[in-house]
Amino acid sequence: MTISALQQARAQYQPKLPKSLKGAVKTVPGAATESIADQADIKKLFPNTYGMPIITFEEGGEGVSIPACNVGVILSGGQAPGGHNVISGIFDGIKKLNPESKLYGFLGGPGGLVDHKYMEITADYLEGFRNTGGFDIIGSGRTKLEEEAQFDKGLEILKKLDIKALVIIGGDDSNTNACVLAEYYAVKRAGVQVIGCPKTIDGDLKNEMIETSFGFDTAVKVYSELIGNIQRDANSAKKYWHFIKLMGRSASHIGLEAALQTQPNITLISEEVAAKKQTLGEIVNYMAGIIAKRAANGENFGVALIPEGLVEFVPEMKSLIEELNDLLAEGSAAEQEFKMIQKSHRLEWVAGKLSPKASAVFQSLPSSIATQLTLDRDPHGNVQVSLIETEKLLGEMVKTKLDEMKAAGEFKGKFGTQYHFFGYEGRCAAPSNFDADYCYSLGYTASFLIGSGKTGYMSSVRNTIAPADQWIAGGVPVTMMMNMEKRHGHMKPVIQKALVELDGAPFKYFVANREKWAVETSYLYPGPIQYWGPSEVCDRTTVTLQLEQAK
Amino acid sequence: MTISALQQARAQYQPKLPKSLKGAVKTVPGAATESIADQADIKKLFPNTYGMPIITFEEGGEGVSIPACNVGVILSGGQAPGGHNVISGIFDGIKKLNPESKLYGFLGGPGGLVDHKYMEITADYLEGFRNTGGFDIIGSGRTKLEEEAQFDKGLEILKKLDIKALVIIGGDDSNTNACVLAEYYAVKRAGVQVIGCPKTIDGDLKNEMIETSFGFDTAVKVYSELIGNIQRDANSAKKYWHFIKLMGRSASHIGLEAALQTQPNITLISEEVAAKKQTLGEIVNYMAGIIAKRAANGENFGVALIPEGLVEFVPEMKSLIEELNDLLAEGSAAEQEFKMIQKSHRLEWVAGKLSPKASAVFQSLPSSIATQLTLDRDPHGNVQVSLIETEKLLGEMVKTKLDEMKAAGEFKGKFGTQYHFFGYEGRCAAPSNFDADYCYSLGYTASFLIGSGKTGYMSSVRNTIAPADQWIAGGVPVTMMMNMEKRHGHMKPVIQKALVELDGAPFKYFVANREKWAVETSYLYPGPIQYWGPSEVCDRTTVTLQLEQAK
Repeated sequence: MTISALQQARAQYQPKLPKSLKGAVKTVPGAATESIADQADIKKLFPNTYGMPIITFEEGGEGVSIPACNVGVILSGGQAPGGHNVISGIFDGIKKLNPESKLYGFLGGPGGLVDHKYMEITADYLEGFRNTGGFDIIGSGRTKLEEEAQFDKGLEILKKLDIKALVIIGGDDSNTNACVLAEYYAVKRAGVQVIGCPKTIDGDLKNEMIETSFGFDTAVKVYSELIGNIQRDANSAKKYWHFIKLMGRSASHIGLEAALQTQPNITLISEEVAAKKQTLGEIVNYMAGIIAKRAANGENFGVALIPEGLVEFVPEMKSLIEELNDLLAEGSAAEQEFKMIQKSHRLEWVAGKLSPKASAVFQSLPSSIATQLTLDRDPHGNVQVSLIETEKLLGEMVKTKLDEMKAAGEFKGKFGTQYHFFGYEGRCAAPSNFDADYCYSLGYTASFLIGSGKTGYMSSVRNTIAPADQWIAGGVPVTMMMNMEKRHGHMKPVIQKALVELDGAPFKYFVANREKWAVETSYLYPGPIQYWGPSEVCDRTTVTLQLEQAK
Repeated sequence: MTISALQQARAQYQPKLPKSLKGAVKTVPGAATESIADQADIKKLFPNTYGMPIITFEEGGEGVSIPACNVGVILSGGQAPGGHNVISGIFDGIKKLNPESKLYGFLGGPGGLVDHKYMEITADYLEGFRNTGGFDIIGSGRTKLEEEAQFDKGLEILKKLDIKALVIIGGDDSNTNACVLAEYYAVKRAGVQVIGCPKTIDGDLKNEMIETSFGFDTAVKVYSELIGNIQRDANSAKKYWHFIKLMGRSASHIGLEAALQTQPNITLISEEVAAKKQTLGEIVNYMAGIIAKRAANGENFGVALIPEGLVEFVPEMKSLIEELNDLLAEGSAAEQEFKMIQKSHRLEWVAGKLSPKASAVFQSLPSSIATQLTLDRDPHGNVQVSLIETEKLLGEMVKTKLDEMKAAGEFKGKFGTQYHFFGYEGRCAAPSNFDADYCYSLGYTASFLIGSGKTGYMSSVRNTIAPADQWIAGGVPVTMMMNMEKRHGHMKPVIQKALVELDGAPFKYFVANREKWAVETSYLYPGPIQYWGPSEVCDRTTVTLQLEQAK
């Protein structure tokens, strides 16, 4: 296989580990833990894995050698840079504990466990994947491990391969399921430990003990490179407003971090929109106001960042979507009637059937978007929110608003747009030094959690704004991060999703600066991720992490 | 002003120069030159600037110091990485020749010369722009310098500022105009030299003496970084075909080079489409065939690169567009009639008015595209080809084709698409080491061409696959690159645009490999541009250049 020059050179990189993991390692348990809420409920659901102590690995101990222990690994959900390094860390870690231990990868995500699709990850095979992006080493998938039948099916193959521990690399849901699986195997005395690893470019799996999920650093740096380049273009050509949508539906960490790295003129944060119960009209007015202000200064250009999930955080849009789902429910009388109506009269008909409030919102939408909302349905018959091109929706509505303002003499500039959507561009980038080190350390830590017999833990590496040497490695009981939430009509134990905190340091820094960034052109151009060169360039962490961890 | 960590570190970079420019420089004239075609016509049009010798700068000479000479500089047309380094090179070069010389920048492109908008570029001001991307140092613009009135207006300000030489940094058209201006000022004995610099990310300004235009290297590397990341995602998720459109309407060098750097499954080259007189249907069949073959191997994913200008190279689409322009010419009786027709019947009506061949093509298009072709017009009343979303047009047509193949049992896979368009992401990236050095050398060379009294020359730096030290600096008479072409109905002298040569080494290499790349997954992941680190990573040139210059 031919590989690129960068891959060849990068293959030589030896990821950095916390000092505590380099030599003999001592397992230090802390105090017992509690879940963040709903303690009684969660304790009842997790009798074996609730209340366990936080584990810290420290230097020292006796340099244990443990019996050979086969380990399985699963990549779950969307790609994130650094997954291959987690696997490298697990591999090197279990081999350090006992060179006879083997690592098996289940293929194509959690489905591989259920369907008994796997491969042994050998040293030779692994070699080509160290420090590379992607999840192609064993593939990933979105099958959810939720049913006992799946757990039992999985156990068959685990037994057959003599696997004593399973590492599930995934986001909040996958780690929740990892813990359910850990508990299930514990109840069954199956002799299989389950350890989770915090992965997601969205950055919404974090808490007191998990400072950041892996992949966030690299992905946002790639997006920030591109945003910076586009800003420089905007400021050179001085003729376009670039509306840039960023992947991630459930939280705006990516947009916030990208804003901190690049200082664009406008950044919308979904969590703020929800908290302030903003309407689409208010958002459009806010954007148009900034565009008009810049135009008054002779600057008919700018950059706006828009989180992919925005419309679902706008209360009136959420209500509208719910009403549309009810109104046009598959097989309903109304749906039959709708289909019989001439296309050119459908929007009017729908508007007439909605509540007055929803109807007003519906009628304020550009007709292409309104049409899309009535037509495209997912397999469950619901409106496909993910298909809404939010950046174009806002662009068209802002244009309409600016036309009104122009007529009223409140806007004298020009407004031309370019649209972008960044997501796939960053999910499989080769990991930054930070993610390469962090992932390798997470994997290495997972192997020590296995070695010390733990189950229902998530691998945790903290103090991440310090040099890697000083990072603190250990394990956190997954139940500690849980609360009860309603999912598909039932109360379920889940890891609480970390949304952008409006009283957190990153958001407050953003708010303190955004008016200046809006009107002045204060663009930062972070450039591409660097692997060699000055440490302040190559080893910088995200601004979010710096602000959150600053004491 | 706050700048990013990368900018801070990169500001220290001292671009490399050819050895011949480092000390005392000797001007060595070669033999007289001729234009590549239409010699008599071009000689008549350029009595003062035709037939001049190629100039080479060599080490040695007397280390001339020349009288102080104010110089003006203009950035013309679209942004390209490295423009700021050309200006740095000019600045350092003219200061070396005489520290009293001043550099003026005309603002916002060639219009700045005509409108007398300018600034002095001082050492302090320049400092923040060295090795950065963008054209924001003085801005750029698309005003064409073609009228004598413009030349005279420009001369006023040149005289006022005592500017003896003007450097125009631009693409083929801007350099053609630079030569026309050089000739005009020569005829007028105006005492102003004009020098051109070869800029364009499109890579279509090159010939025997100009090995590559600046910015191509950096821009394609950024696109290749992203294509590589998307390929890795495709190969990890195994669920999408990514259709990626690449900026550049007149040539496919970007797509070809990106293909050589990343080895995607499908790359369309406009020049081949034109040469083979391919129909849209043939292109769609070709793509669907590859998709079906990969699906038969269980690989329902892939990456396809599509040049932005493709449809204009498809002969039947070109004819269709011409017919539509005639049929729906503004103010024509047909246009009036068209407007009166109910929207739902318009496409049918148009199809009935076209020639049978054009009508068949028109009816084969997805209705959204067909509608767009009849509705959106540019200010001249022409169909807006640039608005056609070629990647989606092909995606929809391929989908239709695959549905037919599925019905016929010839395709058993799945086909899901993601669309991307890359252009603005790379035009203002910070220049790669190659472009940083090449641009600085081009600017430095320009100052020596000024110092040796030349006009109507383009700055030329050759032997670019060798280390910068061994590059050959000099000047090429612009007339040497010209031929006569019909533009807007008149024969005009123009620099011949360099299209992808189907018998050139880069295309032949691509053809020799594309069948393998189509079916096998041979992706390369070049990663982001690196400024520090191993030379084989940081200083690699484009594959196009390596293949073209390989002896």
